[in-house]
Amino acid sequence: MKIVGHYINGQVSEAAERTQDAFNPATGEVTKQVAIAAKETVEEAIAAAQAAFPAWRNTPPAKRAKIMFRFKQLLEENAEQICAMIGEEHGKISHDAMGELTRGIENVDFACYGPQLLKGEHSRNVGPNIDSWSEMQPLGVVAGITPFNFPAMVPLWMFPLAIVCGNTFVLKPSERDPSCSLYLAQLLQEAGLPDGVLNVVNGDKVAVDTLLTAPEVQAVSFVGSTPIAEYVYSTASAHGKRCQALGGAKNHAIIMPDADMDNAVAALTGAAFGSSGERCMALSVAVCVGDEAADTFIEKMSGEMQKLKVGAYTDSSNDFGPVITEAHKNKVNGYIASAAEQGATIVVDGRDPEVKGYENGFFVGGTLIDNVKPGMTCYEEEIFGPVLLVVRANSMEAAMQMINDHEYGNGTCIFTRDGEAARYFSDNILVGMVGINVPLPVPVSYHSFGGWKRSLFGCLSAYGPDGVRFYTNRKTITQRWPSSGVREGAQFSFPSN
Amino acid sequence: MKIVGHYINGQVSEAAERTQDAFNPATGEVTKQVAIAAKETVEEAIAAAQAAFPAWRNTPPAKRAKIMFRFKQLLEENAEQICAMIGEEHGKISHDAMGELTRGIENVDFACYGPQLLKGEHSRNVGPNIDSWSEMQPLGVVAGITPFNFPAMVPLWMFPLAIVCGNTFVLKPSERDPSCSLYLAQLLQEAGLPDGVLNVVNGDKVAVDTLLTAPEVQAVSFVGSTPIAEYVYSTASAHGKRCQALGGAKNHAIIMPDADMDNAVAALTGAAFGSSGERCMALSVAVCVGDEAADTFIEKMSGEMQKLKVGAYTDSSNDFGPVITEAHKNKVNGYIASAAEQGATIVVDGRDPEVKGYENGFFVGGTLIDNVKPGMTCYEEEIFGPVLLVVRANSMEAAMQMINDHEYGNGTCIFTRDGEAARYFSDNILVGMVGINVPLPVPVSYHSFGGWKRSLFGCLSAYGPDGVRFYTNRKTITQRWPSSGVREGAQFSFPSN
Amino acid sequence: MKIVGHYINGQVSEAAERTQDAFNPATGEVTKQVAIAAKETVEEAIAAAQAAFPAWRNTPPAKRAKIMFRFKQLLEENAEQICAMIGEEHGKISHDAMGELTRGIENVDFACYGPQLLKGEHSRNVGPNIDSWSEMQPLGVVAGITPFNFPAMVPLWMFPLAIVCGNTFVLKPSERDPSCSLYLAQLLQEAGLPDGVLNVVNGDKVAVDTLLTAPEVQAVSFVGSTPIAEYVYSTASAHGKRCQALGGAKNHAIIMPDADMDNAVAALTGAAFGSSGERCMALSVAVCVGDEAADTFIEKMSGEMQKLKVGAYTDSSNDFGPVITEAHKNKVNGYIASAAEQGATIVVDGRDPEVKGYENGFFVGGTLIDNVKPGMTCYEEEIFGPVLLVVRANSMEAAMQMINDHEYGNGTCIFTRDGEAARYFSDNILVGMVGINVPLPVPVSYHSFGGWKRSLFGCLSAYGPDGVRFYTNRKTITQRWPSSGVREGAQFSFPSN
Amino acid sequence: MKIVGHYINGQVSEAAERTQDAFNPATGEVTKQVAIAAKETVEEAIAAAQAAFPAWRNTPPAKRAKIMFRFKQLLEENAEQICAMIGEEHGKISHDAMGELTRGIENVDFACYGPQLLKGEHSRNVGPNIDSWSEMQPLGVVAGITPFNFPAMVPLWMFPLAIVCGNTFVLKPSERDPSCSLYLAQLLQEAGLPDGVLNVVNGDKVAVDTLLTAPEVQAVSFVGSTPIAEYVYSTASAHGKRCQALGGAKNHAIIMPDADMDNAVAALTGAAFGSSGERCMALSVAVCVGDEAADTFIEKMSGEMQKLKVGAYTDSSNDFGPVITEAHKNKVNGYIASAAEQGATIVVDGRDPEVKGYENGFFVGGTLIDNVKPGMTCYEEEIFGPVLLVVRANSMEAAMQMINDHEYGNGTCIFTRDGEAARYFSDNILVGMVGINVPLPVPVSYHSFGGWKRSLFGCLSAYGPDGVRFYTNRKTITQRWPSSGVREGAQFSFPSN
Repeated sequence: MKIVGHYINGQVSEAAERTQDAFNPATGEVTKQVAIAAKETVEEAIAAAQAAFPAWRNTPPAKRAKIMFRFKQLLEENAEQICAMIGEEHGKISHDAMGELTRGIENVDFACYGPQLLKGEHSRNVGPNIDSWSEMQPLGVVAGITPFNFPAMVPLWMFPLAIVCGNTFVLKPSERDPSCSLYLAQLLQEAGLPDGVLNVVNGDKVAVDTLLTAPEVQAVSFVGSTPIAEYVYSTASAHGKRCQALGGAKNHAIIMPDADMDNAVAALTGAAFGSSGERCMALSVAVCVGDEAADTFIEKMSGEMQKLKVGAYTDSSNDFGPVITEAHKNKVNGYIASAAEQGATIVVDGRDPEVKGYENGFFVGGTLIDNVKPGMTCYEEEIFGPVLLVVRANSMEAAMQMINDHEYGNGTCIFTRDGEAARYFSDNILVGMVGINVPLPVPVSYHSFGGWKRSLFGCLSAYGPDGVRFYTNRKTITQRWPSSGVREGAQFSFPSN
Repeated sequence: MKIVGHYINGQVSEAAERTQDAFNPATGEVTKQVAIAAKETVEEAIAAAQAAFPAWRNTPPAKRAKIMFRFKQLLEENAEQICAMIGEEHGKISHDAMGELTRGIENVDFACYGPQLLKGEHSRNVGPNIDSWSEMQPLGVVAGITPFNFPAMVPLWMFPLAIVCGNTFVLKPSERDPSCSLYLAQLLQEAGLPDGVLNVVNGDKVAVDTLLTAPEVQAVSFVGSTPIAEYVYSTASAHGKRCQALGGAKNHAIIMPDADMDNAVAALTGAAFGSSGERCMALSVAVCVGDEAADTFIEKMSGEMQKLKVGAYTDSSNDFGPVITEAHKNKVNGYIASAAEQGATIVVDGRDPEVKGYENGFFVGGTLIDNVKPGMTCYEEEIFGPVLLVVRANSMEAAMQMINDHEYGNGTCIFTRDGEAARYFSDNILVGMVGINVPLPVPVSYHSFGGWKRSLFGCLSAYGPDGVRFYTNRKTITQRWPSSGVREGAQFSFPSN
Repeated sequence: MKIVGHYINGQVSEAAERTQDAFNPATGEVTKQVAIAAKETVEEAIAAAQAAFPAWRNTPPAKRAKIMFRFKQLLEENAEQICAMIGEEHGKISHDAMGELTRGIENVDFACYGPQLLKGEHSRNVGPNIDSWSEMQPLGVVAGITPFNFPAMVPLWMFPLAIVCGNTFVLKPSERDPSCSLYLAQLLQEAGLPDGVLNVVNGDKVAVDTLLTAPEVQAVSFVGSTPIAEYVYSTASAHGKRCQALGGAKNHAIIMPDADMDNAVAALTGAAFGSSGERCMALSVAVCVGDEAADTFIEKMSGEMQKLKVGAYTDSSNDFGPVITEAHKNKVNGYIASAAEQGATIVVDGRDPEVKGYENGFFVGGTLIDNVKPGMTCYEEEIFGPVLLVVRANSMEAAMQMINDHEYGNGTCIFTRDGEAARYFSDNILVGMVGINVPLPVPVSYHSFGGWKRSLFGCLSAYGPDGVRFYTNRKTITQRWPSSGVREGAQFSFPSN
Repeated sequence: MKIVGHYINGQVSEAAERTQDAFNPATGEVTKQVAIAAKETVEEAIAAAQAAFPAWRNTPPAKRAKIMFRFKQLLEENAEQICAMIGEEHGKISHDAMGELTRGIENVDFACYGPQLLKGEHSRNVGPNIDSWSEMQPLGVVAGITPFNFPAMVPLWMFPLAIVCGNTFVLKPSERDPSCSLYLAQLLQEAGLPDGVLNVVNGDKVAVDTLLTAPEVQAVSFVGSTPIAEYVYSTASAHGKRCQALGGAKNHAIIMPDADMDNAVAALTGAAFGSSGERCMALSVAVCVGDEAADTFIEKMSGEMQKLKVGAYTDSSNDFGPVITEAHKNKVNGYIASAAEQGATIVVDGRDPEVKGYENGFFVGGTLIDNVKPGMTCYEEEIFGPVLLVVRANSMEAAMQMINDHEYGNGTCIFTRDGEAARYFSDNILVGMVGINVPLPVPVSYHSFGGWKRSLFGCLSAYGPDGVRFYTNRKTITQRWPSSGVREGAQFSFPSN
């Protein structure tokens, strides 16, 4: 059986303490073995990155960006192959994989802007004949730890930008779908990246902990669930590193009575069920303002859901595929059961859908649950499955209060035609990414991605301008030149120019 | 005896679990009692800040800045009184206190730029008829914990900027010299700040821990020693907060053979002994390249040191005053003793200087030690006293290696006339603030202050542009308006515009 | 009779080729004589500015900004006196003069941000060990030519920013109301400005032409009517100068059927009649979409207009005052007459209002004209009087087409609740300053002011970020240092790093 | 004989009022006929650009940038062919043509950053619940007029950036070497550009005047000689357009006594003679400080010049090729003759070099002239040939005064090791582009290119950040939403939030 190994210092390695099964979630079959790195293997990757740093930091940013331009080209040329890899290990249908990859490539575009993004600020005459300027210098070795649900996009949020800033990188992708990351690393090498600048290790908690505690690692970017994000943030911080850790979400859409309802239903169908709801920006709660809006929404949505097609990634006419593991399928089904038990109404029940020829796949069909209320398990926790909850609110204020009271604050949106409602919502909602009639308000690559509350730990959002700041160290230089004829007396007071 | 209390919700409070002596370090006498807040008192301050937040966040930035303009004016009008407060509790001579205050006021100037600094980025047409923009919104309650050595400046690094960004603030100043902070708070109130927006609590570890763990506190700025900085950073992070923690320093100056030596000596006299060396930017190590440079430097510097005048803050002809406590005086003297024991040469010994009329003051005179080497206690640790070490290096490379190997990376400088030496130094030195012929390269208020290595924990430097980013939360809004005639089908793939 | 002279090199001067009457427009009486500068006097001012330039350019920006901080304070302390000066010569009621002055002071606030605004961009390693950065250096002598309608605000748009950027300035204010400019110059001097940095000359076309052609003058900012703006732009350009020339306007408001009509009427009452309509941002055309909206608007507006109170500036309960001259009064009345002749309907006729005790004042009352159509004289030209035209349109598209076809493109606004209408309007309208439910969308001082089409000639808008760019010259420095041991061969091809 | 035509609306056109010879300057032979457009042909191109504008402005910037990414790729793939075109019509040796093209492609890189560069500034709460933001919208039809000496690079400075900003473009390249522009347009079309967005017309003054006066053309970018730049600037301005017009140069290098002389000689050999000196950044005057520096420089330089190899572009071992025309050859030779007549010393005389097999080519060899003084014709005027003048100065101050007194202020540089000399020079020299030990300080594509004094007319430099500002119109939107329950009274005073 194929071994999925590591990529260290420009070489593929299969060093492993043990291996772990990788599944095709559509068939439920084990298709590969993933090498799980021992501590030493991770340290080897870190050492390779450390060794590659001095030359890479001195490579002019424009030269570094040139490699990103070529990388973009290679990604576009090999897009189909990447999508197939994603499908096979993650189960994502090809159109969705291509959507993910396209977003990822846009982050490579942004990395191409490196020379512009790395500009510091220069001040002439901060005092008489004294100049001062800032340089945004690279940090050294940076680590990225990425989740299974976007095997191409989330790694591409991190390493292209970190690398164009002059850092070297160790990526630990999800061991559920690791092939994509390895292939990305090879393409970047092909684009001209020197050995050791990007390294990929597959592993488990041992690998994570090694990255979080190694003194050479200067910074850690993480995307995953909130409990792990919290662990990563506090552990990396306790080891003196800078860290940004993105966690879970529970994204609400408010549907106002004046909303264009067909539009809202169409938008939410994709945003709730696309990729089986395994997205941290999935729209999993619809808060309808007024029973009339709720009834209309339920009616139209349940109609729309008749057309949903769930199945294997190999058939691109499918709308979405299986969830990632059998355990996760059971967990999602459990949430649906609990909803019913706790008093909610299952309008459409997607448990155990029939998928011909894929009877052992990890499928959950689109599910719609009405009369959900705060306090129910299905409301408080992130389901990460194709389950859309409907909550009924009496007013926009009540709807907003619900969102503001929730633990998470990743994304949210409102459907309305009213300018004032939109502005009041976006101003006062305690959520980092806000959509106005946009169900998945993922910021474009030249803005930054970040939730509020327990959806993100750290000062800086992912990618975009914040990503540049995260991956660089500010150095401020203050300069004067002594005039040989001029002597100054000692100054004992604090200098104030 | 006068009680120095707290400032909570616009009111002076003397609530205290216990009180603690505050000294006049020049006389060694206890002059006041500082109220040490109980946990409940700190929580009261946090609650006041939390209550003041909603109205303050909705106050337009230009209105918030208007208060800063008035605050600046009041600071200038009351500068002498502030300097006297500093002198009495810290011991700093008035010209030095004025230097500190002037720098602090420059941070208020920067806070006046608030409306400009808070601009987000707007993108028209991130997709067809879709716009996206970022808003830098305030965080809520922010805490600042500040050290004894700059009782005016370091608080002014923090709260004006945090407040102009729309946050409310709880400041815990050093309990050694707390009067200045209280007075600043009162002036800001007089400038028009609403109750509860700025609160000051005096306290000890109880107060610190309350701030680090309270769920309402969103962010913590700290300046102090490295062990405490590390504790603050890991504790605040473990509680999910953003944190920037500035720690200790050991700032080296490289003196090149081509340096203008008189200039370098004059510059270092102030930078090493000013404020008794109790500055995190104090220049405490001179690395002379070549014995000829070292011998000349020692000769000229020891000559210059004859003129040093140490004494009480009440005589403005003094160059510097006492250190902060008797315990600290003993510690500094201990470092000097250890240097001699470990093989260094005490060229000028400042221990136990005679200061007429102030025999009980905590004085240490200017001290110069030659032949210091890495590994010696006096070299590895931060002395925080008026002690200048001289290290001899054979080459610029060797001198730079020493700096790069040191635990701290706060400030550094080089004395040279050579453009290439300056550029090579500033590019490759692992220090956050670099001076070229500038001995104390403290960035001006419109740049940011931050060391590297174990001198700063966190992503973002203090004040300036980084300060704005630290005190704000990015919110990204993506907006489209549905054309009523147009319907779109559901989109299941990840949206890529 | 009092002579209003010049302010040259820190001295008041009354040098005049001739003098010209200045009126109190409320009484129609001549109250002062304005000195009209001969060419030599203007040249003297230019020479003073030229002489003051070298020292001023070398004054650190933070020091220059310090003077602006003090200037702001003096303006606030002397606000009443300034408003009285404006009232006496311009006729503006005190609340309106205070509104103008407040906006002007906000431009001084922005000038206080100088050190931040003047930052250049720094790039490390544009090539191997080659750095490059930009410095925004001052130009030298800059001229400003300002109109009568904002005797405080428009000069304050220009000289504080130009001066904080390091330039020296010659201001030629309107000879109708010049006292304010002279007083501003004296206050700035009092704030610490060195002699010659700001000079004020009163004059006519001779003064203007001298400024436009003098080789020492590097840049010209102008605000006035379009024909003169065009003349200024082409003349200054033909003499090699940079120039920004702001001209006339015809600002339309679209009133959509869903608009909050009471709100729109209240907003337009102020925006159409405030300051007698003598504002380049006055809202002088209401385009009602649909006859129902038009009829409602006319009814409510004519009702509201019953309450309008026109009179002298000395009574602060008045809503607005006289127009600037008798000739201008006649011109405005002529436009009203022409409207009737060309088929429009005079709904409220403000000609020759009764103002007790001010029978010789230059008063025109609020006037409302319905059924105005493109092609009518009153529609095509800028009236600059308290006259509101109503045009009826069948659709939003038709209303927008009218605006886009008009010669001017200064300001515009839409009244609606609909987010999509607002976005479509703001995206597609060919106007530089757009309001959504904001009748006078004058950008705040930290944004920039500029119309499109024949309302502005030049690349850069007035004040704000564009103002900084206008008043500075980009210098780009590229630096490398030769390593003495390294020799390079000659490179004949174009260097591409 | 081949006709070189136009590229209008996606089609090649050979419409011509007349044709004009195009030469191979190395052989002196006519090789092609260039179609010279009649007014109507230019108007047709403008009309095509105007028609393409609405759809192109609405294309999202990221989509526009995508075409630039592909264009970059096509330029790299077809680089050799482009260099051959340049060689054949301009005479530039292939390594130099590749240098030019590489720089040009870097401007395409910068255009790829479009989505980042077009961001406006967003301010929340400029007043209570009022937001304001700026959008940088395209202008419409923009024209570029480019010189013969960089047939690829200068057009690439302009149209990629203008187009990515959303404008449509009409390019009039030099009729001496027009093939390159046509080919660039075809490659951009191949990259996906819609018809009409980029148009190329060949022509003479008729074409230029049509572009300068057509009301549809909103902005003109020009690079050429100063008299024409001045004409273009004043004519375009008189027709209400924005214009940036780059003219001539006389770039001085100061050689300080402490300069690394071998380095300086090597640098100047390339900078003075590369591309036959036909560059606006050519270094044509060496100002040696002190006779010793001058004598050494002359000796080493004349030695170095023995190795210079002049010849046809087909032999890549040549250092440089012919000048552009026979007339220009005679003009350059005339400057050399005049230098001798006016008292300078011809050290190396490059007139009428022997180039075997190319006896009719327009060749001038490398020429070195000593003892040049201000006032001589060869010093005051731009020679644009392979002629290096040496001026002797007694001091750095005297050398700088010479540069500051010269009509032009494009580029300059200093050779020194001294940090203070470098800083004093770069601060005080009245030149827009300054090199420190960099002989051709052409800013990289992410900074901007612009001279001072009579080397540039206009506010904004070419390409880089200034280019973006030049090619966009600022629109500022101020937005509030009325609360239906809230009514406001009319406000007659000027609104100050």
